[in-house]
Amino acid sequence: MKRFRQTIKIMFSDCDPAQIVFYPTYFRLFDRATQQMFNDVGLEWSKFWPERGLAGLPIVDVGAKFSGPARMDDEVVLESWIDEWRGRTFVVKHQITKGGKTIVDGHEIRVWAAKDASAPEGIKAAPIPDDIKALFA
Amino acid sequence: MKRFRQTIKIMFSDCDPAQIVFYPTYFRLFDRATQQMFNDVGLEWSKFWPERGLAGLPIVDVGAKFSGPARMDDEVVLESWIDEWRGRTFVVKHQITKGGKTIVDGHEIRVWAAKDASAPEGIKAAPIPDDIKALFA
Amino acid sequence: MKRFRQTIKIMFSDCDPAQIVFYPTYFRLFDRATQQMFNDVGLEWSKFWPERGLAGLPIVDVGAKFSGPARMDDEVVLESWIDEWRGRTFVVKHQITKGGKTIVDGHEIRVWAAKDASAPEGIKAAPIPDDIKALFA
Amino acid sequence: MKRFRQTIKIMFSDCDPAQIVFYPTYFRLFDRATQQMFNDVGLEWSKFWPERGLAGLPIVDVGAKFSGPARMDDEVVLESWIDEWRGRTFVVKHQITKGGKTIVDGHEIRVWAAKDASAPEGIKAAPIPDDIKALFA
Repeated sequence: MKRFRQTIKIMFSDCDPAQIVFYPTYFRLFDRATQQMFNDVGLEWSKFWPERGLAGLPIVDVGAKFSGPARMDDEVVLESWIDEWRGRTFVVKHQITKGGKTIVDGHEIRVWAAKDASAPEGIKAAPIPDDIKALFA
Repeated sequence: MKRFRQTIKIMFSDCDPAQIVFYPTYFRLFDRATQQMFNDVGLEWSKFWPERGLAGLPIVDVGAKFSGPARMDDEVVLESWIDEWRGRTFVVKHQITKGGKTIVDGHEIRVWAAKDASAPEGIKAAPIPDDIKALFA
Repeated sequence: MKRFRQTIKIMFSDCDPAQIVFYPTYFRLFDRATQQMFNDVGLEWSKFWPERGLAGLPIVDVGAKFSGPARMDDEVVLESWIDEWRGRTFVVKHQITKGGKTIVDGHEIRVWAAKDASAPEGIKAAPIPDDIKALFA
Repeated sequence: MKRFRQTIKIMFSDCDPAQIVFYPTYFRLFDRATQQMFNDVGLEWSKFWPERGLAGLPIVDVGAKFSGPARMDDEVVLESWIDEWRGRTFVVKHQITKGGKTIVDGHEIRVWAAKDASAPEGIKAAPIPDDIKALFA
């Protein structure tokens, strides 16, 4: 699978009164990194969601382990990739390193949520098309 | 263990362009609920951290499973409790229900991080005092 | 005009590495307070926007002056009110006091933005109905 | 004065249920842009604040006018500059354009807040050093 790598400079607005990155900020970064992966393969959410009848790619499971802090002005590397396609869901992994050492290991499991007027919430998990998968191979 | 319950009205600012709660918002809610538990037993972080020589209660592991959406103007119930004391760490559980149905199951594992000038990052995991544990029993 | 008052306990998640409230947090509070005013008069945004053909109440002008800090565990009072109706826009004022002293003076100017398929962005500023105004008198 | 320009791709996490940028997000962007200006002239906040005895650069006045929306996947240009030095405070201007058209005009007034143990809040507005000003000329 393709790996997507970005260097991130930790800013004042990312941090909390303990002067480390506020932990929900990491999930904001994960969400942005997942979107960026789609941008990088040419699938802008604003265009390809309506084209494919998607309501979105909501999360069903998310987690992270933290083994070291990041602080304002640190430069960290965030590497993200789709780790597994599972029929109607897929697993994204996010790994953050600082000075070559892993400080955050995270994952998101997202659903391919198609619009379906007959479904209870108006959405239904649908099979992920092969041509989409191919773009991340 | 004591259970701490709050009713939360979902606001516009909690939600994303898919018109459901933006998932990092849940972790912001978890962080606030954990702090609120300490407030409720009389341990305001701004006072008891310096009194006990704490740098903070940083997260080492966090996760959530989502089984249903919450939307603007929904009223949800967030129940939080310390599920386990583990020497130098503790597990907080957070459960969100909507109309009696669980929609989010989350957890945080936090470290009792004492200030220690001789430690590499200036902090060291320390044993959680019994009198603190007793307040949540 | 009706005044809407709430007491807010400043939480860890509201604050920044300088250990005061992160200034964008105040605008999040303003947005929530404005929504709360509408909730309090029985106009939940999720219901009354579609009923009245509104796309929303977007901001055209916003500002705040800060004359003192708020810190974690401070209790502040946020008072909000509609200060003026101006045809197609309205002015909301937000004032935050701590220990009786004003620390933040803010305002939002919002547009009554009706959906209009023929307008460039799909919305058009429309006159604010008198029955809405009456609810805040 | 030097002008600092960045191109910003609007992400899902920047937007609200009305599917435009959530207005407090702009202030988060302003805060980051101001910090970035200092980074760009070699003044990382984590280093130069303690070197110069600063507690920070807190805001005393902030505002913005919005003349058009930004949406997910829009590319906008944010231009920021120090517009005026005023003894102990300084004015930062932030202008956002989309397709060449200005959609946001904002400003921040920030204080040069020196640590001072004898002052009421432990900080005191101090004169801005000339060598700092020179870096932005």
